[in-house]
Amino acid sequence: MIRLALAEDVGTGDRTTLAAVPEDARAEATVTAKASLVLAGVPFFTRVFALHDARVVVSAVAAEGAELGPGELAVRLQGPTRALLVAERTALNILQRLSGTATLTRRFVEAVRGTGARIVDTRKTTPGMRVMQKHAVAVAGGANHRLGLDSGLMIKDNHIAACGSLGEAVARVRAQAPHVFKVEVEVQSLEALEQALVAKADVIMLDNMPLDLMRQAVQRVRAGDWPALLEASGNMDLDRVRAVAETGVDVISVGALTHSAPSADLSMRLVP
Amino acid sequence: MIRLALAEDVGTGDRTTLAAVPEDARAEATVTAKASLVLAGVPFFTRVFALHDARVVVSAVAAEGAELGPGELAVRLQGPTRALLVAERTALNILQRLSGTATLTRRFVEAVRGTGARIVDTRKTTPGMRVMQKHAVAVAGGANHRLGLDSGLMIKDNHIAACGSLGEAVARVRAQAPHVFKVEVEVQSLEALEQALVAKADVIMLDNMPLDLMRQAVQRVRAGDWPALLEASGNMDLDRVRAVAETGVDVISVGALTHSAPSADLSMRLVP
Amino acid sequence: MIRLALAEDVGTGDRTTLAAVPEDARAEATVTAKASLVLAGVPFFTRVFALHDARVVVSAVAAEGAELGPGELAVRLQGPTRALLVAERTALNILQRLSGTATLTRRFVEAVRGTGARIVDTRKTTPGMRVMQKHAVAVAGGANHRLGLDSGLMIKDNHIAACGSLGEAVARVRAQAPHVFKVEVEVQSLEALEQALVAKADVIMLDNMPLDLMRQAVQRVRAGDWPALLEASGNMDLDRVRAVAETGVDVISVGALTHSAPSADLSMRLVP
Amino acid sequence: MIRLALAEDVGTGDRTTLAAVPEDARAEATVTAKASLVLAGVPFFTRVFALHDARVVVSAVAAEGAELGPGELAVRLQGPTRALLVAERTALNILQRLSGTATLTRRFVEAVRGTGARIVDTRKTTPGMRVMQKHAVAVAGGANHRLGLDSGLMIKDNHIAACGSLGEAVARVRAQAPHVFKVEVEVQSLEALEQALVAKADVIMLDNMPLDLMRQAVQRVRAGDWPALLEASGNMDLDRVRAVAETGVDVISVGALTHSAPSADLSMRLVP
Amino acid sequence: MIRLALAEDVGTGDRTTLAAVPEDARAEATVTAKASLVLAGVPFFTRVFALHDARVVVSAVAAEGAELGPGELAVRLQGPTRALLVAERTALNILQRLSGTATLTRRFVEAVRGTGARIVDTRKTTPGMRVMQKHAVAVAGGANHRLGLDSGLMIKDNHIAACGSLGEAVARVRAQAPHVFKVEVEVQSLEALEQALVAKADVIMLDNMPLDLMRQAVQRVRAGDWPALLEASGNMDLDRVRAVAETGVDVISVGALTHSAPSADLSMRLVP
Amino acid sequence: MIRLALAEDVGTGDRTTLAAVPEDARAEATVTAKASLVLAGVPFFTRVFALHDARVVVSAVAAEGAELGPGELAVRLQGPTRALLVAERTALNILQRLSGTATLTRRFVEAVRGTGARIVDTRKTTPGMRVMQKHAVAVAGGANHRLGLDSGLMIKDNHIAACGSLGEAVARVRAQAPHVFKVEVEVQSLEALEQALVAKADVIMLDNMPLDLMRQAVQRVRAGDWPALLEASGNMDLDRVRAVAETGVDVISVGALTHSAPSADLSMRLVP
Repeated sequence: MIRLALAEDVGTGDRTTLAAVPEDARAEATVTAKASLVLAGVPFFTRVFALHDARVVVSAVAAEGAELGPGELAVRLQGPTRALLVAERTALNILQRLSGTATLTRRFVEAVRGTGARIVDTRKTTPGMRVMQKHAVAVAGGANHRLGLDSGLMIKDNHIAACGSLGEAVARVRAQAPHVFKVEVEVQSLEALEQALVAKADVIMLDNMPLDLMRQAVQRVRAGDWPALLEASGNMDLDRVRAVAETGVDVISVGALTHSAPSADLSMRLVP
Repeated sequence: MIRLALAEDVGTGDRTTLAAVPEDARAEATVTAKASLVLAGVPFFTRVFALHDARVVVSAVAAEGAELGPGELAVRLQGPTRALLVAERTALNILQRLSGTATLTRRFVEAVRGTGARIVDTRKTTPGMRVMQKHAVAVAGGANHRLGLDSGLMIKDNHIAACGSLGEAVARVRAQAPHVFKVEVEVQSLEALEQALVAKADVIMLDNMPLDLMRQAVQRVRAGDWPALLEASGNMDLDRVRAVAETGVDVISVGALTHSAPSADLSMRLVP
Repeated sequence: MIRLALAEDVGTGDRTTLAAVPEDARAEATVTAKASLVLAGVPFFTRVFALHDARVVVSAVAAEGAELGPGELAVRLQGPTRALLVAERTALNILQRLSGTATLTRRFVEAVRGTGARIVDTRKTTPGMRVMQKHAVAVAGGANHRLGLDSGLMIKDNHIAACGSLGEAVARVRAQAPHVFKVEVEVQSLEALEQALVAKADVIMLDNMPLDLMRQAVQRVRAGDWPALLEASGNMDLDRVRAVAETGVDVISVGALTHSAPSADLSMRLVP
Repeated sequence: MIRLALAEDVGTGDRTTLAAVPEDARAEATVTAKASLVLAGVPFFTRVFALHDARVVVSAVAAEGAELGPGELAVRLQGPTRALLVAERTALNILQRLSGTATLTRRFVEAVRGTGARIVDTRKTTPGMRVMQKHAVAVAGGANHRLGLDSGLMIKDNHIAACGSLGEAVARVRAQAPHVFKVEVEVQSLEALEQALVAKADVIMLDNMPLDLMRQAVQRVRAGDWPALLEASGNMDLDRVRAVAETGVDVISVGALTHSAPSADLSMRLVP
Repeated sequence: MIRLALAEDVGTGDRTTLAAVPEDARAEATVTAKASLVLAGVPFFTRVFALHDARVVVSAVAAEGAELGPGELAVRLQGPTRALLVAERTALNILQRLSGTATLTRRFVEAVRGTGARIVDTRKTTPGMRVMQKHAVAVAGGANHRLGLDSGLMIKDNHIAACGSLGEAVARVRAQAPHVFKVEVEVQSLEALEQALVAKADVIMLDNMPLDLMRQAVQRVRAGDWPALLEASGNMDLDRVRAVAETGVDVISVGALTHSAPSADLSMRLVP
Repeated sequence: MIRLALAEDVGTGDRTTLAAVPEDARAEATVTAKASLVLAGVPFFTRVFALHDARVVVSAVAAEGAELGPGELAVRLQGPTRALLVAERTALNILQRLSGTATLTRRFVEAVRGTGARIVDTRKTTPGMRVMQKHAVAVAGGANHRLGLDSGLMIKDNHIAACGSLGEAVARVRAQAPHVFKVEVEVQSLEALEQALVAKADVIMLDNMPLDLMRQAVQRVRAGDWPALLEASGNMDLDRVRAVAETGVDVISVGALTHSAPSADLSMRLVP
């Protein structure tokens, strides 16, 4: 993915820099935050330069997941001036997006602090950047949901419709799936919740439920004897997430972490 | 890129769908807007399904660049139910992001309507998605800046510093560059603008200039005899872009089109 | 993988066939079992020909997982004679190995029939053929363990040693892992089993335990209130697997399915 | 191929090890034989670790082709504990299979010792592993047949049928083939052998001939003046191979070396 | 290779054609010879269009290896105008080079007609185009030498020096090489020729020998009883090749076929 | 591309060298010119060895673009003898072709010295070698035309025909193209030249014009007020190029640089 990003920006070479900057010029550079943010992606930022020109030395000044204020230093670089200028945009494009995700994730994590609920990401990631974005979520204190369709089992409406009933869907999926995966079922009502408990679903996703209904669902499950995990999902935002967490759910999944986080504002400058 | 996106989501297969949905089930599905938006990316959306399972037939209902209101139909699909469910997320992830970029681009284009200024994108694109994002900008009425470092010449501060003067930088770059590329120079003051005109820069970027200074720059260039194009750049937003356009610049480049556009809200449903 | 296999056998072309067989010759061919076997891999066999020459039509005569006796027909082919001869070896190499795995799997599955134990594969697969081999196990009635290191959690001795205790290892892994994965722990003694139950391990692997100890382990778990799954593992063979199953374990993992199954005997002939 | 094998096992990372083992832990490990075997594949075993994490140092203790008894040391490793644990299975899967092939090859080579016959492999290799398997055959004292369809000429029944006669087939193939390749023809009778001699085939394969017929064929060729090489082929096993060699053939090809050799038993342990 | 060639020319798209030619325009085109030439490469020419846009229909009017005079038609095309214009240069670049090689090859073949000598190519091919160039040589009536270093055995000075003697070099190579490859040795004197005959080299290359010496070498070999093939090599040109052939050698290798053939003059025109 | 070239020559290994040269042998080698030439391609030559075996040390003795006489040294190498022998042909094939292009380019550049005209290359490059060939042109004193169809705008007859008029074609292309590209138009008459000036084409290509017409075209443009660049094109050769340059055109494009330059004669020898 990083090779692809470099290729699409650099192509056959930065004609301006090749013409204007001598081959033997060397420089130092810094990356600083221009606003408050949570830093994420320095390993990938570093990898961009390593793939472009192994002579560039990148030193992380702040740790993955650190909070930086405006003007605070994130990374130092040293190396051939040409390489610094040529790979800059690709490296920053990645760092800004991942720090954006980390910054938003941290706000969600802080919003539910103390409640026992865990903030997790979804599959609504930027094409090609899933692994990087999940890293950003993790360093910011969130957790990762399944990586993709092959590393988890999630029974949704369409699966239930195809099987005839929720119970039948769980049975079919459990029969064919690896025994090391939990079976998760999406429910939108208390009736469906009952069926999920009967089917011994390992994880039950409460999809787009109003707070009140969500509270009833939590009470129902905690009162029973099947220890299902409860996940809340659906257009989660910072205004609402605390109340959701206080219903007692175990996990809250938030698509916005990876599809709506604005880029964090970081800039790179050559040291004069 | 699309193969990569499919691979990261589908991996070795959607274990839930393979277990729950019979191989011979077929279905229809629709993609509809859930909010007002400008549609972009249907050719890539279609390509996701073509690469995943060639039996899925995707029919565009609305054209690239069309405005859709909430509930309006964008695309119809027909094919094996499994394929519809498995490739859905990857295809939607792409369509939502590109429609997000198109929607924001259209707002910028409308903001400058009648002024003669052209809205263009930048290199601040999502890694791996540059070609797709530039397509979204174009169908929404924007134009594309250079694709990458190898297909254009842009002389910035660091290049000028390395060459000793703006004039020397332009001379060196012009000597080595293909004669079919224009030479663009970034300036931040009227003094630099004078030097750019002396050097016969083909395009002059007014970088982060206040409106007043920008107006003076435009007057200076229009009054002279070298027909340089003028490009305004720097943290452009919808509040300010009209005033910038009214200074008389030819081109306004907007990084936000590709690094800050929120995903557009589109959903896909199986037709019951 | 199939492209790789074709490339390594065909390279720049089958010089003998190109010289000896006219371009427009067409033929039919059959694949038959030369011994009793369980058929697996026809979709991959078909894919070899599709990738080599799309004009070859391959028709499965027997289903995946079907038992064939000597002389029974598995597949019919029709197409350009050159293509049939050139891709034959690559296609057969795959079909013979996968049918070998299916044949051995079926024998294990039959050996435990009626006991409730499930036969599963391991990560001891042939490099590059994991997905194909797991398919062969599945069509023969076995089930699949985790696909790889990223789609499951298995705590072994070295992990426990690194964490200081089994309980700590489970805690650390659960804290970082997706909530949709079960946590599996390998134990070799009843003491370790107790710790695994305290740590609420979802799956407990009884590693290389003598039958007697295994029986005690099963009784201990069934008598308690934590519903852990029990997996037996370690040099499993057909002589011993029934007794293992009768201890009451849920799952028996068998490395031999994928690392020691002899190729099944199938041959392809042109119909004169 | 090695990248592919690592990718299918490790995927996006070993979640258990990443959670349980600290990033800075380092360890030593050993690979030992658990049964008598001929070692092969250490260069590929080493390459797995080099590709996964270049900091792992792998030292071969025994040479390629060495015979090891139970408990004897094959390889030492040193490096980050995480890397040792993550790449272990992929590296061992390769080493065990190649040592299995080498072990079986050595037994065939010893069975014909003193006869002048050469044991060679076939194209019945494991998909994707041909080069590695041929290496294992060679270090164990066998020799390699042609690598693939493009690096040798072998005229079989179907080619003869397409050309009308054996003589015509040899003529056509020789006319088009590089002059540096020998022409090999498969014969099943003394009549066909006569035709092959008339056609001046460089190598004649005696396919599935009974011992007695094979002896006559050898005598016929040795008595004539065309110095063809003779290759015996067809379901060769250890019981029969000595007698075949004693007929006086030059080469004996054995498919079992690469399609039926059981994995050799080697294990890797961290040094406490 | 063809994908690579298309990618380097077309990149993200032909901006001129996309802007100037409507998407639904269709056209016919022809490829004609502008000078006398031997046509080669139409299958690769066709493949360029197939990979770029499967809707283009390419019909060969003349056969591979046909001689065309100025103005004679080689190929007809029909399809979307855009596709015809975009892929034209890439397709022609290939066709012109291969026809250049075929044209020169034909002249060498004709120069030796009636002598029994065979014209063959070398490894001095254009990087990436070896298979295509060898095809061009073959359709023009030449033959192919070994494809690469792994599909043939050629003992040169440096190998002999490393082994101590020519005889030892042949012995070592024969011991390790597949029995289906001939062993070729390069000699520059009659003394070396004697050693090659003693060593029973299958092919002997007379490297850069004067005609007179070459004649003696041929007589020596034909007078003996070891039926070695003789290959003449070294800066072969059209003036000298007939005399070389008349010495009685079997094979003449000509590097110029692939490293010095000028492009043949073919042009493509849209039919008005 | 370099990987591809190595793969097609080396394949699974140089069987001769592996058999004849010991693994631990080391040697020095030199590359010398055998005729007068301009050197180009040493960085790519070096890269071949780096990719094949990183232990080979390649030292450039002469600079890119240097003129070498017969016997003059270009490059020194040191490393494992096997690696030197195995990668030699691939590395030389590249160096000889690029030096061939540089040698021819230098002759064209010298032919126009003092006239102010610039010699540039075209898209008639060898498939896969465009970037390398353009490098060779540049180091020899030529300049590069656009790299491919996506990094420049060239309006030809077919585009004009599709648009109805030259003016309309320029308008359409300018409206859709990046503002940093110049628009070039091909003209064959003075009438078309007038239209190109009216349309304010940035570059005008005089295609296959006789000298006299070319002179009139130059006078017409210099006399007007639109500062278009003039490019001469069409079967340019060394006999005619000086006269073309003296007409006063700015740029002369020469296809022969990349499609007809004979390989330069360089050879590599092991130092005894």
